Amino acid sequence: MSEVERRARAALSRLTEPGDPRLTNLVAELGAARLYDLLVNDRDAGGMLTDVAVRLASTDPDRELDRANSLGIRFVIPADDEWPTQVEALVSAGQLHERGGPPIGLWAKGPLRLDRLERSVAVVGSRSATTYGVQVAGELAAVVARQGCPVISGAAFGIDQAAHRGAVAMDGPTVAVLACGVDRAYPAAHTDLIAHLAATGAVVSEAAPGCAPTRIRFLARNRLIAALSRGTVVVEAAVRSGALNTATWAGRLNRVVLGVPGPVTSAQSQGVNQLIRKASAVLVTSGQEVLDLVGQAGEHLVEDPRAPVRPRDRLTSRHRQVLDAVPVARGAGTDSVARTAGLGIVEVSSALSYLHRYGLVEQDDDGWRLAALAHT
Amino acid sequence: MSEVERRARAALSRLTEPGDPRLTNLVAELGAARLYDLLVNDRDAGGMLTDVAVRLASTDPDRELDRANSLGIRFVIPADDEWPTQVEALVSAGQLHERGGPPIGLWAKGPLRLDRLERSVAVVGSRSATTYGVQVAGELAAVVARQGCPVISGAAFGIDQAAHRGAVAMDGPTVAVLACGVDRAYPAAHTDLIAHLAATGAVVSEAAPGCAPTRIRFLARNRLIAALSRGTVVVEAAVRSGALNTATWAGRLNRVVLGVPGPVTSAQSQGVNQLIRKASAVLVTSGQEVLDLVGQAGEHLVEDPRAPVRPRDRLTSRHRQVLDAVPVARGAGTDSVARTAGLGIVEVSSALSYLHRYGLVEQDDDGWRLAALAHT
Repeated sequence: MSEVERRARAALSRLTEPGDPRLTNLVAELGAARLYDLLVNDRDAGGMLTDVAVRLASTDPDRELDRANSLGIRFVIPADDEWPTQVEALVSAGQLHERGGPPIGLWAKGPLRLDRLERSVAVVGSRSATTYGVQVAGELAAVVARQGCPVISGAAFGIDQAAHRGAVAMDGPTVAVLACGVDRAYPAAHTDLIAHLAATGAVVSEAAPGCAPTRIRFLARNRLIAALSRGTVVVEAAVRSGALNTATWAGRLNRVVLGVPGPVTSAQSQGVNQLIRKASAVLVTSGQEVLDLVGQAGEHLVEDPRAPVRPRDRLTSRHRQVLDAVPVARGAGTDSVARTAGLGIVEVSSALSYLHRYGLVEQDDDGWRLAALAHT
Repeated sequence: MSEVERRARAALSRLTEPGDPRLTNLVAELGAARLYDLLVNDRDAGGMLTDVAVRLASTDPDRELDRANSLGIRFVIPADDEWPTQVEALVSAGQLHERGGPPIGLWAKGPLRLDRLERSVAVVGSRSATTYGVQVAGELAAVVARQGCPVISGAAFGIDQAAHRGAVAMDGPTVAVLACGVDRAYPAAHTDLIAHLAATGAVVSEAAPGCAPTRIRFLARNRLIAALSRGTVVVEAAVRSGALNTATWAGRLNRVVLGVPGPVTSAQSQGVNQLIRKASAVLVTSGQEVLDLVGQAGEHLVEDPRAPVRPRDRLTSRHRQVLDAVPVARGAGTDSVARTAGLGIVEVSSALSYLHRYGLVEQDDDGWRLAALAHT
């Protein structure tokens, strides 16, 4: 059973981009195995097939998993003990932010188990770091890793590299989360660093082996770094920096967000200084302060408050069409609602999530049904 | 009348140290003129006389004011239009903190009127500043002063000097608050700077002309800088720095407290970074941000909430002795209570303030009487 699930998730991981909430909503409702069968067998299942038909034809999940295995790469799924459950915080984030859904599975290489990342600290920052930033990131990561807290970063130039190195220098645990397959090295200049992390810590990605890094995957990678770690420290970041994107995700996920200040005359500190200024990050000056603040954070992270209910008449015509197809009494599955509405399953799933969020439909054991609110 | 008051305050300013709440409480109750007469004529008035007898004998307020006048120094008192009313925030602070009372008067030299300081910004920091700190303080002060906001500082080496210079470079208003008499220059190396400020802006002190700077006067000066300005910016400060003392006073007085961050590797930024970290100061990176935040601050500054009431049995025996001398029905003046208690007027005044703060005595038109709470 678990291996059927793994095969299906491996195939889906190859078929779609990380964090796509259309996919993760369907997986949550139908299960990965059933969704995969649906996509393979029912060529009328909806918009998704037309998106992915080409990739689907060339996908052989068994061979893919075998090949990964031969490279020392495992594919960790929610059913595994090793699954880092903290990434489930992305389930609700995925309802609110594009590409914010939870990972379908994590490709991983290296001896460090992913369920050990529960108390990890992300250390991120500029690729074009200054010597100041590199020095501080390295020392801070060393202090954190020496206490056994895994240091997560993205293996990029600058702050990322300094953070991994600081942890490695202490023989401390450190993990690189990549935007490409874990069998690839990006940037190429960090081939040795990434190989070292794969040999001593872990290298992790949502992208299947062989995948190239893309802009979408970098953004999804940032959200994954934030979701895996208990707190994110931004060491240096210019005003437009990927590290600020990671910090934003950490904030959305109610993780601790920390920033190392720098000279107001340094462009590389401008983004962090503003983050602290707006109270989006707490100022830290040392690894010990990071440990104190990350340690204070509770085991159970607070979820964002729910969005307010909006009246039915503010729905789009497409959403109203789906709402009209939802049964009043006993629930129906997404595929049944889609047939009634005459719309594709992917579009209907997304509409049902939207309607659910605003309290207009409910879910029971049989599927979707109209909520009391929607009658009015 | 006003000149009688000025003479009395000038004498009292020479007789006591700045911010002494024993003095300011008595002045508030009795008026400066009556208190001065009491001290001159009634040699049994209490502990204060023994403290100040020597100084009193050598004080001639008329000659003092004439001499100051001939040096271009004026003595500004609360009855004057020029009085900077924002320093009255120290009246309640003086009840809670030693040496926190309001000034008895301000010795001033220079064309800038003190009532123009209502929208001023204090820029303070380390004497042993780095080139980074000096650069940032100068630029920040220049931007603030160019907008017509007076820049207040202490004419010390390092950040203070840079702040004054930045304002001067823009022909903007700037004021030095000194711990010594305004006819003196401390540090001596800043004789020219202080003379320039006296010629173009203002030099201000609570200490009478000729007074030397002392530790007590430096601390009192810091509180005055905070009280005069609407917001205080700390540019660089090591962990133990007078600038942090100014920031603490600004916080107590509900003024805007701002901090310029610096490298975590710089000892000169450690104090400011910690101030920001503990949310005791808002991080700022430019003069414009300072203006935005200081401009946002309302005209009417919020007072601290009152301290909780404590039971009578927690009083010292001396406080209880004073409490027992306070009449139950019609109020009595401090001197009357002092006679009944057989204690000095200064000690009794201080005890009455303490008892008043905890709700055990009340004040009516006739003076002090027991509060309902004290009967229990």
